[in-house]
Amino acid sequence: MRLSELGEDNLLAKILPHSQPNARVITGVGDDCAVVRFGAAKDLLLLKTDCVVGNIHFAQDTDARAVGWKAMMRTLSDFAAMSGIPEFALVTLAIERKRKLSWVEKLYHGLNRAAARFQVAIVGGETSDTRGSTVVGISAAGYVERDRCVWRTGGNANDDLFVTGRLGGSIRSRHLKFIPRIDEARWLTSHFRIHAMIDLSDGLGTDLPRLARASKLGFVIEQNALPLSPGCSPEQAISDGEDYELLFAVSPRNRESLKRSWAGKFPKIPLTRIGQLTAKREIRKAKFPSGYVHFRQRR
Amino acid sequence: MRLSELGEDNLLAKILPHSQPNARVITGVGDDCAVVRFGAAKDLLLLKTDCVVGNIHFAQDTDARAVGWKAMMRTLSDFAAMSGIPEFALVTLAIERKRKLSWVEKLYHGLNRAAARFQVAIVGGETSDTRGSTVVGISAAGYVERDRCVWRTGGNANDDLFVTGRLGGSIRSRHLKFIPRIDEARWLTSHFRIHAMIDLSDGLGTDLPRLARASKLGFVIEQNALPLSPGCSPEQAISDGEDYELLFAVSPRNRESLKRSWAGKFPKIPLTRIGQLTAKREIRKAKFPSGYVHFRQRR
Repeated sequence: MRLSELGEDNLLAKILPHSQPNARVITGVGDDCAVVRFGAAKDLLLLKTDCVVGNIHFAQDTDARAVGWKAMMRTLSDFAAMSGIPEFALVTLAIERKRKLSWVEKLYHGLNRAAARFQVAIVGGETSDTRGSTVVGISAAGYVERDRCVWRTGGNANDDLFVTGRLGGSIRSRHLKFIPRIDEARWLTSHFRIHAMIDLSDGLGTDLPRLARASKLGFVIEQNALPLSPGCSPEQAISDGEDYELLFAVSPRNRESLKRSWAGKFPKIPLTRIGQLTAKREIRKAKFPSGYVHFRQRR
Repeated sequence: MRLSELGEDNLLAKILPHSQPNARVITGVGDDCAVVRFGAAKDLLLLKTDCVVGNIHFAQDTDARAVGWKAMMRTLSDFAAMSGIPEFALVTLAIERKRKLSWVEKLYHGLNRAAARFQVAIVGGETSDTRGSTVVGISAAGYVERDRCVWRTGGNANDDLFVTGRLGGSIRSRHLKFIPRIDEARWLTSHFRIHAMIDLSDGLGTDLPRLARASKLGFVIEQNALPLSPGCSPEQAISDGEDYELLFAVSPRNRESLKRSWAGKFPKIPLTRIGQLTAKREIRKAKFPSGYVHFRQRR
């Protein structure tokens, strides 16, 4: 069997249960970040790695500064999804030796600017020669208070589903310039009990089923309610991916106070109720095209 | 200027001072691991990333299990160099989608086996499609007690320089099978005041000057004293690289007790005094061929 016949979730599911469990590990694979204990520290240690690859996540002629920004922010967005604070990043760069130094300097310009936006310190770099596509890997470590960590697994039946921002059309430029919703996630968990959360990297059509599955629930979507990016169809909002918005589940009791206080705090960022989690593990919106999944063709 | 004209140290030196400093960062780039504070935790948090690349660090026909072992152990070896304990690892894999699932399964078999050898939990994986060489990146987090962390910078003039094991000829097979000197490093720092330490990944000819430079010292080597792997010349011991042995500096007052108690504890692993650090920042062994440095041709 070739990798192209498997989705990434299937690949990881096939491989990772063989890893050794460990009492210090609270959550390994299966959420946006790994959540572990560090010694006797009160806060939880969050760990995440992600990468962008030339010709896959960025075109060869993309400004290297934008590549650096995107590479860093993709990883930091996973901290937002846990309501965490990223603190430290490591950069792994595999790049052909014939590439110009100026490209790497611009890449680091973007990496540094993105890291500085959230006071993240780049504390290490590993650079290797390669034959073929440039790979920029970003690993990050950070923390979250024990009572503010939000997993994908905590959704309840009848919880409202909210998304931040607008969905779809990210490829036109937003995917290179987005700002992870770290501040918004921190505000959410300081004011409301958020039951489950995920960042929309692969698209609502992929990431919502992931959240529902992790919570052992189904979901209903009100397609007319989806907050569409200008010029985008509901299908694009569901399938394009790379929105890097937050999708979260919260009790319907919080609905009105959440909407009102969000609008006061973040007047420029829409917050939209798009549906709810349901008790049945079936998906009531039958036609739900999948988001972008590595190793599987976009449908 | 192209990357091939710069060594990796020069590249990092050129780029990384632009990163933001941070009060929680004790050591960023410039040692084997980054050393940072995590909240109010007593122990220090160690972070490290490294990668192996197809056609650079392993041949395309290398057993994927050996690739996984090597990828994991290279990163863990940097924890040995700080006298640290690795606890958690993240795997970043960029691989062509036409590759067989069985290759990835074997890779993870090697990764898991290596991680289990040191009770390291693999807590995350990111997999991406690529065009060209396979890249396996391993990031790890772990800890070291504040009073047992060993940097490259702490060497004193007249310190003895010791190396563990034998040097040279790693490419014949050792580079795919080595066991990082974590247990040995922990034993050293529990019994002696080790002033400075590094793991020999790029070869004595590259890594000893790095340690001496970090300590603002020079060094003398007794070439006849080098512990040679069977069939290797002193030049090979200096230049081959990928030994993954420890090189450390310790007061000559400890010389005899160190040799004696090491021989009792690790009878099968040679421990050899190969020279000493010197006050002058000059290198007294003129003909010192360089180890393997990425982006620069082997001399």
